[in-house]
Amino acid sequence: MRILGIDPGSVATGFGVVDSKAGRLIHIVHGTLRPTPRSSAAERLHYLHQAISEVVRDHAPDAAVVEQVFVSASARSALVLGQARGVALAAVGAGGTAVVEYSASRIKLAVTGNGRAGKAQVQNMVRRLLELDRAPARDAADALAAAICHANAGKIGALTQAARLPAKRSTLRVRRAP
Amino acid sequence: MRILGIDPGSVATGFGVVDSKAGRLIHIVHGTLRPTPRSSAAERLHYLHQAISEVVRDHAPDAAVVEQVFVSASARSALVLGQARGVALAAVGAGGTAVVEYSASRIKLAVTGNGRAGKAQVQNMVRRLLELDRAPARDAADALAAAICHANAGKIGALTQAARLPAKRSTLRVRRAP
Repeated sequence: MRILGIDPGSVATGFGVVDSKAGRLIHIVHGTLRPTPRSSAAERLHYLHQAISEVVRDHAPDAAVVEQVFVSASARSALVLGQARGVALAAVGAGGTAVVEYSASRIKLAVTGNGRAGKAQVQNMVRRLLELDRAPARDAADALAAAICHANAGKIGALTQAARLPAKRSTLRVRRAP
Repeated sequence: MRILGIDPGSVATGFGVVDSKAGRLIHIVHGTLRPTPRSSAAERLHYLHQAISEVVRDHAPDAAVVEQVFVSASARSALVLGQARGVALAAVGAGGTAVVEYSASRIKLAVTGNGRAGKAQVQNMVRRLLELDRAPARDAADALAAAICHANAGKIGALTQAARLPAKRSTLRVRRAP
């Protein structure tokens, strides 16, 4: 099973792809998407959509994992985070990839054994679990941690199945000029 | 000048295209995008991205207008609204179309002469200004109202110019498997 983890953010979006084979974790790729702050919001979001679409196309994940948003922040930050998150989800949804969500504490618990682990602890454990030369940057480490969490959860229950839903039947009502 | 108004929402997204020629408003098209609630969030957002991209491709607007979000709602609603809004902005950003924002009260004022006008009043005035047979549905009327507001603002100052920013120079840092 190939899993794509995404940690969307308005400034930087981390992503990471991990294979889970016979109980083993194999690191495929990770990175950080950082649209230039000089471009407009629409251009930054378009860049993010393109970049995530490319990752999905190149690595064809079986499942995508994002962190559940614990909405403690201000409504303003939630709006801005939502914009990046929506774009990431849309890019994943294009391929019909199932999307699974886990709480931040569940992800930290799965990776470090401690649901309240700090950023550095997550980075270090991700490095060790994936046998990387050095710890990934924060956003990418969070994305890889989300993917690892799902790989471990897969051993217990098939959470993915619940996330895959029937094909869309959407309606578009258009009224053209007379 | 051809203007696309968008009123993004998690359940329904309205859009409307209006031409502004020599002080006259010409209705081109409007509609409501309603992804089926049965599909996953990622699928609904992908549908929205595709549909807005199609409108942009078909009608090639010179500017796109969205309502500024007045974040009074809960952080949870802001997140969900942000997801739809981000996808709409990304679709517009793909074509390099300038995006302009106006406050809800500014839009209502431009269309009805009253910054606190109700939904029905906006719908009726949009119908009259665009000489439509009947009033558009709420979300589409709000989208058309945003476009009309920009058409009128265009007469005063070239707000659009400020919104068009230099081409993006984004960075993508990827670390591949060894």
